[in-house]
Formats: sequence, C-alpha cells, structure tokens
Amino acid sequence: MDLALCLDVGGTKIAGALIDRKSNSRFGISIPTPIESTEATVAAIEKLIKDLLDKAKSIGKVKGIGVGIPGTVRYPEGFVVTAPNLPISNLPLKQLLEEKFKLLVRVDNDANLAVLGERYFGKARKCNDVVLLTLGTGIGSGLFLGGRLYRGSTGTGAELGHMIIKANGPLCSCGARGCFEVLASGVALERLAKDLVKSAKSSVLVELAEGKISKIEGSLIAKAARLGDKQALAAFAELSFWLGIGLANIANIFNPELILISGGLAEASDLLLEKAIKIMTEIALEPNGSMVKVEVAALGQKAGLIGAAVLVFQV
Amino acid sequence: MDLALCLDVGGTKIAGALIDRKSNSRFGISIPTPIESTEATVAAIEKLIKDLLDKAKSIGKVKGIGVGIPGTVRYPEGFVVTAPNLPISNLPLKQLLEEKFKLLVRVDNDANLAVLGERYFGKARKCNDVVLLTLGTGIGSGLFLGGRLYRGSTGTGAELGHMIIKANGPLCSCGARGCFEVLASGVALERLAKDLVKSAKSSVLVELAEGKISKIEGSLIAKAARLGDKQALAAFAELSFWLGIGLANIANIFNPELILISGGLAEASDLLLEKAIKIMTEIALEPNGSMVKVEVAALGQKAGLIGAAVLVFQV
Repeated sequence: MDLALCLDVGGTKIAGALIDRKSNSRFGISIPTPIESTEATVAAIEKLIKDLLDKAKSIGKVKGIGVGIPGTVRYPEGFVVTAPNLPISNLPLKQLLEEKFKLLVRVDNDANLAVLGERYFGKARKCNDVVLLTLGTGIGSGLFLGGRLYRGSTGTGAELGHMIIKANGPLCSCGARGCFEVLASGVALERLAKDLVKSAKSSVLVELAEGKISKIEGSLIAKAARLGDKQALAAFAELSFWLGIGLANIANIFNPELILISGGLAEASDLLLEKAIKIMTEIALEPNGSMVKVEVAALGQKAGLIGAAVLVFQV
Repeated sequence: MDLALCLDVGGTKIAGALIDRKSNSRFGISIPTPIESTEATVAAIEKLIKDLLDKAKSIGKVKGIGVGIPGTVRYPEGFVVTAPNLPISNLPLKQLLEEKFKLLVRVDNDANLAVLGERYFGKARKCNDVVLLTLGTGIGSGLFLGGRLYRGSTGTGAELGHMIIKANGPLCSCGARGCFEVLASGVALERLAKDLVKSAKSSVLVELAEGKISKIEGSLIAKAARLGDKQALAAFAELSFWLGIGLANIANIFNPELILISGGLAEASDLLLEKAIKIMTEIALEPNGSMVKVEVAALGQKAGLIGAAVLVFQV
C-alpha cells in the first residue's frame, strides 16, 4: 500500500500520520513541539519522521514526506522564511529532510495544505474556487483558485490575515496596523472580551475565569456567550463585524463559490457566522456576496495532514 | 489575414479596432457613447461592429468579436450584471451580439482585458502572476494568476477597488464604506484637493481652476503639484498613502511578481508611486513587499482592445 508520511508542525504540538491514497490515516502520532531552539525543533521533526518510517515498514511503501508549517514558506523550495510561533526562520527544511531521508519531500504553508485537504477529501470536493480561513490565534489562509492551489510567485502569498481592513487600526504582530488578523482572530476576541469586562458590573465570564481577567481565553468566552453573558456576546458581535468585512473582501476579490472556516474559532461558529455572513452580504458587490457559501470546514485538525498527503501523491 | 474585431466600451467613448494576431491595429475608430438609454448604447455598439465588419472585408477575415465593459460581467456568459457609468444592467450582451452577427463573441470586464493585453503584448510579457490596477475615476483590476486570467467562479471577481481598507471610512459609490476605490482613485484625489484648498490662503491650484473650486480635477491637481502647490502636493501625498495600503494588501494576498498601474492616474505616477511603493514595502510581509515590482503599464488606453484580441484569438 502506498503511504504519504505527513507532518503538521504547530506551535504546541507536532502531529504525524501515515496516510493512504484514500486519505485514511493508517497510523497517527503526536508529540509536544520543543521550541527552545531551531535545533530542538528540527531534531523532533526528524525523530518523528524516523519513527513513522519504522512504523510504515509493516504497513506499506512511503512515497514521500509532506510537511505543513504555520508560517511563510517559499514553494516549491520548501524554504521556511518565518514561522511566528516556532524558532524557525530562513531554514531550507525541504533540502535538510531530503538529504537526511533520501525521499521526496514537500514543505508548504499549513493553510495551503488545509485547503488542499478540504478540496480533495472534505467540504470543498469538486469546487474550483475556494478560500479557506484558519481562525485561530492568528488568521491563516489557503487559496484554491481555478482548480489549483494558488501560492503566488515565490510561494509566499495567500496572507489574507495581513490584509489591512482598518488602516491606522490596532497594531498587528506583523508590525502593520489594522490587519484582518488583529481584528478578527482569537487574539482579537480575547482583547475585546477583556476590555469589555473591565467596565462590567457583573460578568459570568469573569466568574468562569475564577475572577482572573488574565485567564480569559477563547473557549471561556464562547462558554460565557452561550450562557448569555452580555460582554462575551458583545465581544463575539464585534468579532463578527470584522469577520464580515474580511469575508466581503474575499467575496469581492476572489468571487469564490465557497469560503471555509477552520481553526479554533470554527468551534464558535454558532456565535459568529450568522452575523458575519449578514454583514458580508450587505457589503459585497452582487452577485459576489449572495452566491458565495460560507461554511465550517469538515476535516478539522486533520485537514493539514490530509492536504500533505494530497501534495505527496500529486507529484 | 486573421482579425479580431475589438471594442472597448467606456462611459464617454467607445473605441473599436481591427487587430491582427501580432497585436497590430489595422484600423481604429472611436465614437461618443450614447448613454441616454440601454437601447441607444447597444445600438451604438452594434453600429460600430457593423462598420468595422464592412471595413474588415478589404483587410482580412474576422475570427470573432471581443468586447470590454467597465463593470461586472459574468464570464463566459458575457452577461453584464452592472456597469456604473453605462445604462446597462442585467444584459446578455454576448448572446445579443452572437445572434445578430453570427460570429464568436467574448464579452469581459475591461480591466481583465487590460491585464491580458499587457501580459501578451505589454509590460508583463512572460509573467505568471500579475495584478493590474486601473486608477481612473474608480479603481478596476485584472488578475493574471498562475499563468491564466483569474475571474472567479461566476466571472465577477477581481473587484480590488471594493476591497475595504478603512472600515467605517468614506462612503463609496458601491454603498460600502472605506473601499480602496473611494480612498485612492481620481475621485478621491479631487475630494482631497478640494478639501485642502478650502483652508488655504493662496493656491496655485485654485488659480489654475480660474477661481472655481468646482473646476478642480485630476490633471489640474497634477499640474499644480508639479508647480509646487502645497495643497496639490498634500493631496497626492495622502493618495499615495492609500495607494500604498492597497499595494501592500495586493502583495500579501497574491505575492505577484508585478503590479501594473494604468488609467488616468498613471499619468501622475511621478507624484504617486515613489511614496506608495515605500509604504507598501514597509507594510507588506517579507519577501512579498520587497520582491514585487510596481510599474506603469505599457499599452495605455489600447490595453483593453489588445486584450480583447488576445481573448478572441485564444479561443
């Protein structure tokens, strides 16, 4: 049986899997990401690959290695320019792994792989024009345009999280002001909720956080909102507004048939999407705003691994 | 000789040409656009086509008709959804012309045709990833991505002019607030200059406009700026800022090798581009901001006609 050896390198964990041509995971494993040094991260990646290669011997033949990185990756070189949550920058990761394992290696941005996974085995099957947003701590994106993954001329495009939607707005981690990411990500939700509870007389959210504002984070805010907490609901309402602006831009720029939402905030889609879609439809030109579907992605955290397999088998 | 019969329908004039496979115009003509009714506009288009077909008899064989429309066009249907400066909406123009002339007809957005013209016969030859902006009264755009024109799933994408870059900003003609177009187009320049001269003690610009603020428009503002007029220079400086934000978004979203500037404001590129590029480079992620070239398009007003010929001959 042909296998793709797939890795999804995150800021907290590295997920690995042996995946067959039908996207079935034949073996999966996950380890914490060592982030004390570049060497430690690379060593962990190599160790996981070695373990998966050993495991694969009893299952089938490894056709290649696919790796997703949460950052800017030059493609097809597989050169990691930067990865904000990892101690990796300017690293020729594909070359390193090819030399070490003498196998075909593809290294790509994780959101690119996620949209590829959804396109071939998830919510976007047979779609020609799909934009996927990963709404987590930050905002990543993958573009599947005209029937193909679109990466840009050096493979470092599709940075929709750093599209400026409010010039002179709040400072983003990238150094610019008013990026989509700083206004509509998990970090934005936290900032909004923390600001709102400060002036609240009573707050279910603060109770849930055991009185500690510093403990307020995404899943607590969602929980409080579902319990009817005013500030938590207001934070989601404002987040929905910014998400709606971003969706309107995506509809006008790409005119996709489908926009998929994944990442941690997808779990709060009940609190976010209805209002965001309403705003998008009001703002975007016709027919772009009314014809596009906005849905939660199907594959969840596995999308990146499955997309890595697609990339390995496509070659 | 094979000919493409090409039309570029604008709000003030309709340009027509017979173009050969090497992009040479064998015959050109231009008439004012009647805008009193849909019927009048369509009749003028049909009359121009008929005249060009008559003229073509002595030159060569017409392989098809290509028409550029400044508006939202569903492609490949050639159905004009809206065209803000023309009395045309929800019009199956391609179908109408095919039935009338029994020839192959392609109707597309004018900026799509312009980027196609520049890609095959202008500044963007051999480029795979190019974004063209038409900076005129409004802002249009054409996307040539991964070696192909990208139109979106219903052909109505590439509306970069209506990408929101300043949420809750000034009201755009599309009904949304803070679009790229309302901040960085010719109309924006006029608005900025008119606001600035109101509080000025002396103004070369107002002198050039013979004392009438209502007479202030793009080319006068450029003239005044080149004469050192403070308010005109300030208007261009602010316009450059907004153009820089838009360029940064384009660099981050598409990672193109080239961004081409065309339209009326391209004639003021000496007053605009240097600062806009500086701002783009400061804001966009690396390597997207530093690797992209921003240049004035080569074909000027002919780009749309030449692009229409490319479309006809490509089929």
